[in-house]
Amino acid sequence: MSDITMIRAAAQRLKGHARRTPLLSSPFLDEIAGRRVLVKPECLQHTGSFKYRGGRSAVSALDPEVRKTGVLAFSSGNHAQGVALAAREFGVPAVIIMPNDAPALKIANTRALGAEVVLYDRPGGESREEVGETLQAERGLTLVKPYDEPEVIAGQGTCGLEIAEQAAELGVTKADVLVCCGGGGLTSGIALALEAEAPGMRARPVEPEGFDDTARSLLSGRIETNAQGSGGICDAIVTPAPGQITFPIMKRLCGPGLVVSETEALRAMALAWQRLKVVAEPGGAVALAAALFHGHEIEGDTVICTISGGNVDQAMFARALDTLEPA
Amino acid sequence: MSDITMIRAAAQRLKGHARRTPLLSSPFLDEIAGRRVLVKPECLQHTGSFKYRGGRSAVSALDPEVRKTGVLAFSSGNHAQGVALAAREFGVPAVIIMPNDAPALKIANTRALGAEVVLYDRPGGESREEVGETLQAERGLTLVKPYDEPEVIAGQGTCGLEIAEQAAELGVTKADVLVCCGGGGLTSGIALALEAEAPGMRARPVEPEGFDDTARSLLSGRIETNAQGSGGICDAIVTPAPGQITFPIMKRLCGPGLVVSETEALRAMALAWQRLKVVAEPGGAVALAAALFHGHEIEGDTVICTISGGNVDQAMFARALDTLEPA
Repeated sequence: MSDITMIRAAAQRLKGHARRTPLLSSPFLDEIAGRRVLVKPECLQHTGSFKYRGGRSAVSALDPEVRKTGVLAFSSGNHAQGVALAAREFGVPAVIIMPNDAPALKIANTRALGAEVVLYDRPGGESREEVGETLQAERGLTLVKPYDEPEVIAGQGTCGLEIAEQAAELGVTKADVLVCCGGGGLTSGIALALEAEAPGMRARPVEPEGFDDTARSLLSGRIETNAQGSGGICDAIVTPAPGQITFPIMKRLCGPGLVVSETEALRAMALAWQRLKVVAEPGGAVALAAALFHGHEIEGDTVICTISGGNVDQAMFARALDTLEPA
Repeated sequence: MSDITMIRAAAQRLKGHARRTPLLSSPFLDEIAGRRVLVKPECLQHTGSFKYRGGRSAVSALDPEVRKTGVLAFSSGNHAQGVALAAREFGVPAVIIMPNDAPALKIANTRALGAEVVLYDRPGGESREEVGETLQAERGLTLVKPYDEPEVIAGQGTCGLEIAEQAAELGVTKADVLVCCGGGGLTSGIALALEAEAPGMRARPVEPEGFDDTARSLLSGRIETNAQGSGGICDAIVTPAPGQITFPIMKRLCGPGLVVSETEALRAMALAWQRLKVVAEPGGAVALAAALFHGHEIEGDTVICTISGGNVDQAMFARALDTLEPA
């Protein structure tokens, strides 16, 4: 399904739209990690996460006749904002289905990007899929899935193309590339890009404790699920299981998964703030946490890690900063 | 003294060393400002501020025979770190003279970059210039001034070259370019770069209330001083007066200065965190504050502003986040 040709095509379509995020580093982080640490801060991407890449890739790949009736996404978070912005750029409607207990700020942000937000009664047991199917049928909307969709994976893979190129400019051709992993869209996309452009590197998924479905799936060789499908502070990257399309790619290409604690994720957020001057959300900080605090599980002189997003509220951010020594 | 030829030469010397920081934006900030806002986040530069550009430019311009005996800087902040890192990259000694009442963290950070920190007794009235002259004489160190030094101005000007190029890629050729201004090194460097590369743009200095020496100097046409030479939360960009070299450049090229309150700077820090996912220090946020809250003093459909640095402690950052509505 997804392959490097699709990723390169997505990169062409994203040109001039997606930001080419820089590759950051700090000697202070290198010292903590015991090796060189290069950080790809996708929190600086439009809408504050890598999800814009996949959203824009999918929306731009649609036939214009299909696209003009609009797109649909289920999401209470980063994917919704990525799809909403992409749809607005094409001047087509975006309908985002969100639970009615989602944070007011997330609903407001998605609306501010021009999307129509349809709430479903999650606490009351309403099925978002049924709500979505009704909307698709009535209005001819096209569903953009968050990760198990080839054009979404191709869009996320453009992040991997940039990593390969930017690392090569620094003389780095061998490294573990740690990727914050939920359903595996970003991880599988980066893995495909590295296979073609930086075969000395390997992608490795990083997940929070209690939601290590991908790490366990890579160990067992088949899709494993989490006891809980959502929850914890790393909610942005928590999914019930790796995807049907993403998992076979990860199984073929990825190194072993890494698992970090929530406390490690908070501390990585604080260090990203202090040393890199970027804002990470808890789920967006798990790969940096692995780079900094799980060095014994990593190979090579250099480690590369993504910060997948930065959409976090101030109370959670204050918790992260509290992990630092007082100045 | 400083001119576009020097800036272009500095850009060549900085290539592969200084980061090309991206140009960020957010529809949420555009809405607050009432026009398009493009942000150049120099907080993402090495050592967390634009000062690395000038430090690296000056150290790299020295004759190798002169350079090898080492460099000297007076600074308790960003300039010290920029010079320290540049010296370490060339493998030459850096001596930084700091007051003995400087924050322990700043001293530790400068030492961690490989510099030798020499403390002088500021509360006791010791003269840092005398301490510096003694060191220069004894050890043959070369002083790198923080702003009134042509090669430092040239280095800061490379930020202006990038602004001109990155704005042109977005189709922007006319804009006020707001620059966080202390002694005027960054402002005058950017002004020279824009004169050559983007003549439809004009640099404008932004300062905090109570330290608006440059704004008043531009009005009167001669160098004016502040009642206080230091203090306030924007300490990183507070100087007693514009420089002897920087002021004539600013007088010839810059538009009127803007002045913002400390509260506006704190609120701009919070919005940079929330909407751009970058960390600004108070002094580094004054230009964004002007873009967002002083729109009536700005011309054109698009405004460009620098975030000059992000070296801030967590207590001050918490103060900034407290200016946001609760999530």
